[in-house]
Amino acid sequence: MLVSCLPSNPRVRTDIMESSTTPRPEKGELLHEGKAKKVFKTSDPELYIQEFKDAATAFDGTKKGTITGKGSVNCTVSSRLFKMLENWGVKTHFVDVLGENEMLIKAVEIIPIEVIVRNIAAGSLVRRYAFVESTKLEPPIIEFGLKDDDLHDPLMNDDHVLALGIATTAELAFLRRQANIINDALREFFSGIGIDLVDFKLEFGRLPGGDIILADEISPDTCRLWDKETGEKLDKDRFRFDLGNVESAYNEILKRTSTQA
Amino acid sequence: MLVSCLPSNPRVRTDIMESSTTPRPEKGELLHEGKAKKVFKTSDPELYIQEFKDAATAFDGTKKGTITGKGSVNCTVSSRLFKMLENWGVKTHFVDVLGENEMLIKAVEIIPIEVIVRNIAAGSLVRRYAFVESTKLEPPIIEFGLKDDDLHDPLMNDDHVLALGIATTAELAFLRRQANIINDALREFFSGIGIDLVDFKLEFGRLPGGDIILADEISPDTCRLWDKETGEKLDKDRFRFDLGNVESAYNEILKRTSTQA
Repeated sequence: MLVSCLPSNPRVRTDIMESSTTPRPEKGELLHEGKAKKVFKTSDPELYIQEFKDAATAFDGTKKGTITGKGSVNCTVSSRLFKMLENWGVKTHFVDVLGENEMLIKAVEIIPIEVIVRNIAAGSLVRRYAFVESTKLEPPIIEFGLKDDDLHDPLMNDDHVLALGIATTAELAFLRRQANIINDALREFFSGIGIDLVDFKLEFGRLPGGDIILADEISPDTCRLWDKETGEKLDKDRFRFDLGNVESAYNEILKRTSTQA
Repeated sequence: MLVSCLPSNPRVRTDIMESSTTPRPEKGELLHEGKAKKVFKTSDPELYIQEFKDAATAFDGTKKGTITGKGSVNCTVSSRLFKMLENWGVKTHFVDVLGENEMLIKAVEIIPIEVIVRNIAAGSLVRRYAFVESTKLEPPIIEFGLKDDDLHDPLMNDDHVLALGIATTAELAFLRRQANIINDALREFFSGIGIDLVDFKLEFGRLPGGDIILADEISPDTCRLWDKETGEKLDKDRFRFDLGNVESAYNEILKRTSTQA
């Protein structure tokens, strides 16, 4: 039997259940374990299972902790956002929600580029270039970081990407276009639930035929989300900077996204 | 009377002297002092004097020292390279050599972008992205760094440059084109004197009318120069990494460039 991604809130469960129509393949061997997720093979070579963990890390993995319920929240929020993006015409790896922290996804080869979209100056942008925090960035800034923990995910320009053989010029143009489309969709979505989308990180993957689709997750782990009224941070910065009420911030995003998704 | 930029070698002095036909304006107030150069106003508002220092710094200014004769070598080598580039159709700020370490230049407002061109992997490229040192980069990698010592000259992509208001899209395209033209010219020049041009840093400035021209210097301080036969480093890396024979490396570049310029 398929289980909703969110077991604790009946109202939300009802919202989610309708998507669970895909037969569940057998969970296979662990393919990859990252800081916040595990990815498993399945009995279907075209599908993986992505399992969201409660483990939290920050500052290049130097700060470690647990955010109780994070795996479940991020699974549910990501699922809602992927479905919303599919409705906007964005191809994603999302197939279905399985367990409370498990997502069935298309098997892709992750492109080792962290695509960061910034609408408002915060975080490393402020540290690196002395932007004044909260400055609106219009047009948004798009950054490509090399997905490599040992190298601390360094910023790349297009020449670096090409020299490293990670993507072609046409693929980089596609990633930029997708990032802008996704940003438009997410900004509108979050604005509708009283949240400013400050910045976020995307990852993309290649299907066996070479098509590139959105992968990974979109959650309070990978976005900066500020309440429009109060400015309150409703994302992983609460964990990073010991701001307290970490779990309730994640739950607030869970609650608000349920009204829109 | 005008003084050649290089006093110690009669043969070289003869090569340089023919350029000294511009009336020397009065040296005025110090406009800017950097780690390796001072820039003075002159009695002519359209001209500055650039004075090259023997002081050497590395690793963001954390390593300090003196390379005896460096100011004179860099003034002479830069002058030769600027003249060579002018012959290739590249507009530069070079006007004339004045004293042994003084160059008369056009008054420009420096654009705070360090334009770095890389033909062979070395230095920060190897550290940041784990390129194998000495890997040939074809096409070359061009990087834009924010010229800001306090921020450690961070790498920028085009979006950062635009958001910081440092240059326009058209100006960035111009800088890239110029960087490639200058690279072609310098590579050919250095190849002719048995040297591989590994990488180098350029700075550009705006004339009062808005035209952008090449500024700053091109010298063993700002280039990585490896002997084609022996691989010997003939540049500031000898100072950075305490490789010894620093002065003789600078003098070797002085000597070899005299045969081509």
